[in-house]
Amino acid sequence: MKKSLGAKTLVYPTPVWVIGTYDKEGKPNVMTAAWGGVCCSQPPCVGVSLRKATYSFGSIMERKAFTVNVPSDAHVREADYFGIASGRDSDKFSVSGLTPVKSELVDAPYVEEFPLVLECRVIHTFELGLHTQFVGEILDVKADDSVMGKGGLPDMLKVRPIVFAPTVRKYYGIGKNLGKGYAIGKEF
Amino acid sequence: MKKSLGAKTLVYPTPVWVIGTYDKEGKPNVMTAAWGGVCCSQPPCVGVSLRKATYSFGSIMERKAFTVNVPSDAHVREADYFGIASGRDSDKFSVSGLTPVKSELVDAPYVEEFPLVLECRVIHTFELGLHTQFVGEILDVKADDSVMGKGGLPDMLKVRPIVFAPTVRKYYGIGKNLGKGYAIGKEF
Repeated sequence: MKKSLGAKTLVYPTPVWVIGTYDKEGKPNVMTAAWGGVCCSQPPCVGVSLRKATYSFGSIMERKAFTVNVPSDAHVREADYFGIASGRDSDKFSVSGLTPVKSELVDAPYVEEFPLVLECRVIHTFELGLHTQFVGEILDVKADDSVMGKGGLPDMLKVRPIVFAPTVRKYYGIGKNLGKGYAIGKEF
Repeated sequence: MKKSLGAKTLVYPTPVWVIGTYDKEGKPNVMTAAWGGVCCSQPPCVGVSLRKATYSFGSIMERKAFTVNVPSDAHVREADYFGIASGRDSDKFSVSGLTPVKSELVDAPYVEEFPLVLECRVIHTFELGLHTQFVGEILDVKADDSVMGKGGLPDMLKVRPIVFAPTVRKYYGIGKNLGKGYAIGKEF
């Protein structure tokens, strides 16, 4: 029997992605976002939604660029911190000890210590209400050698991304491999 | 050292969500989507991206409604099947043996056997390229009594949603609890 929980943003899984930007003065900043997802295959695009009140919002509006950085579960405390503090009054890279790297493709920094990063150029800005969705065209994906699996692609169990449960506000790791897509359903 | 992998939709984690719709004749249909995410808190909205070529695309355009159904890992084969077959030539509910339930709030069915469902009314349609993003206002969230945790909210480890690794095309389960959001990062 299903119980009604009301009109809320309560759905699983949501990602824990760290959005990298430069502010007006060129200071690198990061904020954590769970409101995001891939939204187009061609051109390859990812959408991330930010509140206007965030410091990163102004940076993205100005530079028309951001990175999506996927933290491993070993950095879950840093990821949580990046969602609590504001770049308006903190230098989150310095405080966390993580390293900003200037993207050569877009006007934004990525996080050296995070194993998987996307460099994105803003191609759409959609006002949805409390949040604005930035659609970024993915110009490149970069991954650490250490997380590569067979076929030269990142292995989920080496990247070890974090999953967020909204409303209950808890982080989870990745579990076991459940099978191959476009394959295990062919029995039907 | 990071290696460039090119411009592609390769990011972790992505969700495995099953989108429920009625076609012109009122036949219930489901398709699996990994291109989606929450995109606004107020109004509460979720975005899902579909190719125009899918059968579900026409149904959403016509009915302006869809459901987002979160399958448990026990139903990973059904979820994969829903992404392989087309509602144009298959009755996916009949073939899988799952049960469509008519939403009382929107003109779309949800999957009785899936523990967490969102009933959505389309409020924006964004043409992005190969994919069109439908932004649905979440009118209600419904969850099975059996997956509720403390505080009367769904427990991630009871819902047991599926995570997808795009490009490598593999499904994964949820791992262990890594801590509390807006809390574990306060040490910095």
